[in-house]
Amino acid sequence: MLFASDNWAGAAPEVLQAIVDANSGAAPAYGGDPWTARACAALSETFDRDVAAFFVGTGGAANGLALSTLAPPYGMIACHEASHVQMDECAGPEFFTGGAKLLPIAGADGKLTPLTLRAAIDAFPERPPHGSPFAALTLTQGTEFGTVYDPAEVAALAAVARAAGMKVHMDGARFANAIAALGCTPADVTWRAGVDVLSFGGTKNGCLAAEAVIFFDPDGAKDFEFRRKRAGQLFSKSRFLAAQFVAYLEDGLWLRLAARANAAAKRLSGGLADIDGCEIWAPTEINEVFASFPPETEDRLKLAGALFFPWVTPGDPAAGRMRRLICSFATTDEEVDRFLAVASA
Amino acid sequence: MLFASDNWAGAAPEVLQAIVDANSGAAPAYGGDPWTARACAALSETFDRDVAAFFVGTGGAANGLALSTLAPPYGMIACHEASHVQMDECAGPEFFTGGAKLLPIAGADGKLTPLTLRAAIDAFPERPPHGSPFAALTLTQGTEFGTVYDPAEVAALAAVARAAGMKVHMDGARFANAIAALGCTPADVTWRAGVDVLSFGGTKNGCLAAEAVIFFDPDGAKDFEFRRKRAGQLFSKSRFLAAQFVAYLEDGLWLRLAARANAAAKRLSGGLADIDGCEIWAPTEINEVFASFPPETEDRLKLAGALFFPWVTPGDPAAGRMRRLICSFATTDEEVDRFLAVASA
Amino acid sequence: MLFASDNWAGAAPEVLQAIVDANSGAAPAYGGDPWTARACAALSETFDRDVAAFFVGTGGAANGLALSTLAPPYGMIACHEASHVQMDECAGPEFFTGGAKLLPIAGADGKLTPLTLRAAIDAFPERPPHGSPFAALTLTQGTEFGTVYDPAEVAALAAVARAAGMKVHMDGARFANAIAALGCTPADVTWRAGVDVLSFGGTKNGCLAAEAVIFFDPDGAKDFEFRRKRAGQLFSKSRFLAAQFVAYLEDGLWLRLAARANAAAKRLSGGLADIDGCEIWAPTEINEVFASFPPETEDRLKLAGALFFPWVTPGDPAAGRMRRLICSFATTDEEVDRFLAVASA
Amino acid sequence: MLFASDNWAGAAPEVLQAIVDANSGAAPAYGGDPWTARACAALSETFDRDVAAFFVGTGGAANGLALSTLAPPYGMIACHEASHVQMDECAGPEFFTGGAKLLPIAGADGKLTPLTLRAAIDAFPERPPHGSPFAALTLTQGTEFGTVYDPAEVAALAAVARAAGMKVHMDGARFANAIAALGCTPADVTWRAGVDVLSFGGTKNGCLAAEAVIFFDPDGAKDFEFRRKRAGQLFSKSRFLAAQFVAYLEDGLWLRLAARANAAAKRLSGGLADIDGCEIWAPTEINEVFASFPPETEDRLKLAGALFFPWVTPGDPAAGRMRRLICSFATTDEEVDRFLAVASA
Repeated sequence: MLFASDNWAGAAPEVLQAIVDANSGAAPAYGGDPWTARACAALSETFDRDVAAFFVGTGGAANGLALSTLAPPYGMIACHEASHVQMDECAGPEFFTGGAKLLPIAGADGKLTPLTLRAAIDAFPERPPHGSPFAALTLTQGTEFGTVYDPAEVAALAAVARAAGMKVHMDGARFANAIAALGCTPADVTWRAGVDVLSFGGTKNGCLAAEAVIFFDPDGAKDFEFRRKRAGQLFSKSRFLAAQFVAYLEDGLWLRLAARANAAAKRLSGGLADIDGCEIWAPTEINEVFASFPPETEDRLKLAGALFFPWVTPGDPAAGRMRRLICSFATTDEEVDRFLAVASA
Repeated sequence: MLFASDNWAGAAPEVLQAIVDANSGAAPAYGGDPWTARACAALSETFDRDVAAFFVGTGGAANGLALSTLAPPYGMIACHEASHVQMDECAGPEFFTGGAKLLPIAGADGKLTPLTLRAAIDAFPERPPHGSPFAALTLTQGTEFGTVYDPAEVAALAAVARAAGMKVHMDGARFANAIAALGCTPADVTWRAGVDVLSFGGTKNGCLAAEAVIFFDPDGAKDFEFRRKRAGQLFSKSRFLAAQFVAYLEDGLWLRLAARANAAAKRLSGGLADIDGCEIWAPTEINEVFASFPPETEDRLKLAGALFFPWVTPGDPAAGRMRRLICSFATTDEEVDRFLAVASA
Repeated sequence: MLFASDNWAGAAPEVLQAIVDANSGAAPAYGGDPWTARACAALSETFDRDVAAFFVGTGGAANGLALSTLAPPYGMIACHEASHVQMDECAGPEFFTGGAKLLPIAGADGKLTPLTLRAAIDAFPERPPHGSPFAALTLTQGTEFGTVYDPAEVAALAAVARAAGMKVHMDGARFANAIAALGCTPADVTWRAGVDVLSFGGTKNGCLAAEAVIFFDPDGAKDFEFRRKRAGQLFSKSRFLAAQFVAYLEDGLWLRLAARANAAAKRLSGGLADIDGCEIWAPTEINEVFASFPPETEDRLKLAGALFFPWVTPGDPAAGRMRRLICSFATTDEEVDRFLAVASA
Repeated sequence: MLFASDNWAGAAPEVLQAIVDANSGAAPAYGGDPWTARACAALSETFDRDVAAFFVGTGGAANGLALSTLAPPYGMIACHEASHVQMDECAGPEFFTGGAKLLPIAGADGKLTPLTLRAAIDAFPERPPHGSPFAALTLTQGTEFGTVYDPAEVAALAAVARAAGMKVHMDGARFANAIAALGCTPADVTWRAGVDVLSFGGTKNGCLAAEAVIFFDPDGAKDFEFRRKRAGQLFSKSRFLAAQFVAYLEDGLWLRLAARANAAAKRLSGGLADIDGCEIWAPTEINEVFASFPPETEDRLKLAGALFFPWVTPGDPAAGRMRRLICSFATTDEEVDRFLAVASA
């Protein structure tokens, strides 16, 4: 009954096999290999557009490097107050951008709205050169509260951002889960809705360690290779990152894995909602459930070996009682049902 | 009727004369001059303790350099959401610290309280190494809303900060005005209340361009000289900065100038409170008045040549109608009275 | 006939198998897994001392992060003018340290000597706070010219460094090759000789992507976890990095692989030395051969499918004619002999 | 007999008077004042072209900020190995640029030549994205060895730089001395010769504290205001910086002061050349003399109160015996003659 995090799971068998297969003989280093070319082509196909794509090792690096191409070192980056870039990257965006400022904005269910974004912008008068000029908006898709932005919501936020002179970044550490939930095309909720750069996550959803930074306008990627190299994110044997993405995108594996994780979370959430005393604190739209339990229920679950953690966050609607339960592609119905059985016992 | 900003005033005659006097012949560069020694001694005397003091050219540099000694580049700096470091330094603190993160916290009248500080800390779980570790609290004295922290308030905030592992910085761009208002000793509201480093402003209160960074524990200043030098804030002819502080501190000039500015603001604020339709939005404790006027009153004031600006800020209680009126040591009662006469006409 | 680079090789079968084996079920993320503990223990055993070890994805990250713990952002880092940190990391060390300065120093065969180091120090007067204070020396082991420092040479350099107030870093991207060549213990040429922090490379010698930063004094590692995290080098599924090191160190695999690569280079170098018109420009001590060929020989080699590149570098003794030939653990005697046959035809 | 540094002198009377005069009443802060407009106009006139000019407090800030507009944080800045940016700014250029790399290049008399610059470029292969891409060349005018570049020399260097993709910066901390020595127009040796941005020094030549960053192509200055602000180099009462430049440029004061300092140095250098045992180590083209003395002569000079310091530098032709003697606008013939008398006694 492992609900600690989706990154406790290992790699999906298909992804691991792709790594093994890519180990056949020598190949040019630093991205000059055929796997990199194939993965980039697959990404262009996935997004229905010629994209410039770059592979890096972690989501934090993907976000930081992406933002460093959108915001000058004195620029402002608007984000949700509970977002990963704000809460969980140990000031990584500030590091990669050379000192850009993050403006955390509150919002229910981990989401920004055109109104809250606009209000935050209005309350921060730039009076150049005194205030940091607004440079980028970053949205998380799916969010840290397990919710998603639909294409119209993204477009509305991007419009506000653009009107204020900002580019739009999307942190897609759980992009697969979001697409599986939304049912739209990857293009619809990204560049067609005004997103300039996407951090496309693989690791939380069955890759071993692979994230892609995707520029929908390849012009924006002009100095990305320099930035990635100096940050130690250009892997010499980078075929092994690309090979993961080849397998991940092939035959829709990424969406199948995400759908499985989402379904497990939905099963869990639906079950908990029916249990007296259990509360659900955010809509379960992807693979995360935010719940609270009566103390004795929690004790029982822990005793039975269930693994999950408290979730403390700005904008916490549960006053400290919230627990985060994450499902992965490897979560089984049996695990979920056992958890529910213990919870309702 | 100039109420645009206290830095539109020139230098106080005593300060200017000190610069002229310091120009007698040659002197060692980079702080090896007698004025620097005298100014440092005067600061130790002012603060009733041996301090390590360093002169820089601007308040932004003072704040940024001070914070860079308190927070590592991945550390968190808690501040009020309307503070100068957050709103007006174009991401300067992020620059000087090499990427530390600022956590803006809301609070009435430009002030933090132990409760709001504690709540912000609690909502940002560090889970090392994921969240930026809390490293420093910075307080503004007097605040951006023209209010002051009394020694007990500073001590209570410093206690919360220290319990969370943070050092305490005070942005004293208007420290003189605060001391003149509080009537306490400079020591009482700084190191005796738990402040580690103070940006002691001179420029807004009659200096030409002179700010001091003051370490109450000289050990904390170990690498300050290197940081100041690389930031281009070590002035070769630095006797001219020190000479300003010598004059500023001598015979209590700094407090006399500040008292004059505070009194003008009080006169202005008191007068406005009696005028129908004028509202005062924060207690007038130092030299700043936050007011709003009926549109026709504002038009009349502008037409009569009054100079002041809207004040847009997070936490604005006036929904965009707030105007900031700042008095300086050079503001005359006559100016204030004329303003009041036009306003009440 | 692939002599382009040791990172064109794939992963050694043992290393790949370890990754596959590590994929059995779930495991705590971010280093809380048993592989990480085992790898750290193996490193302590390898170095005959309790070390603090951290895994990262690339050599550039290992070097940059290691140096960021040794040098303040205004400090000086002495290095060889042809070193990887100076030539090949796109200003990575400057990035990770927040702006430390690299002082490139010339020296034959890619090596510094106590004399050249001392002379460079003496020619750069610090006059605090004007010059950057010397903070760290970084040595490459084996060097970019395919040579090694023996323990006495390291100790002599470390003594000069320490006398000037510097800590000592070793870039061991090819540390395995150096140890295989030197025949000494890993301890002898690192901490026993005065090295504080080692970047211990795996990737060039049979790992898929795994480097370790090793602190011989664990106290020096106090803030490493924060720095690694904010740089996006803390891998969520980090068991897969650690598992590589477990396999790498087990039963001396790392030394066997390195010995194989070294032997191939020796065979190549020895053969070339006997061929008329071929010149060898640096002692072949590890897995790199620096040679030049008559133009017609080079044409013949290229035509026959041999892959190798010109090596342009400061301190080039060959005036632009030098070629770098690198052997890896996967280089076969047959490849070498075929190359020699074509070269001597 | 003060030959310690030109920045031990105070301010020229005309400059100080301009500061006093500028203190008449209130004026807009942050550069919205009439002195700033006048100084900018005077700079455009001085350079025979519409320039974008910005005032800052120190030469280190001028250089660092100028370079930050020319080089990306991963870029390479070529400089002389004895230059101020390399030796005397405590890694300031690395700080302001966010981590750009300085490439120190040797050269006689403190000067680069097209050949030495070209050789340094050729020895540093970029192989994008591995090596830092060459972004900027910075020349010092007059140099740290008291020499100057004539317009043809600057043009030849700029041509090499431009061919390698670099912009050209000139560190003109002693620009006045160089122009006074060269007898050419300021335009001839800057933009007409290919210089993009100039740090135009005032402080070493009679200003109190005033330096200007001058963009010959105003387009290059687009984000300078943000960079200056976040670095704490935008002075609130900036009229006092501008007023210095107004006086400095008016009626050619800057060139008169510089000519005086240069003449004193020439008198000193010429006299020393005739004294047995005294050696001159670089042509005395501006206000600096690099000499060595027999030990007994030096003792006698020190005893007589002469103030000057050893000059230790990379590329030292005097093996540690070199002394730097700097004249300022305030140096008198009498001082020089007395020094010569003691030296030759």
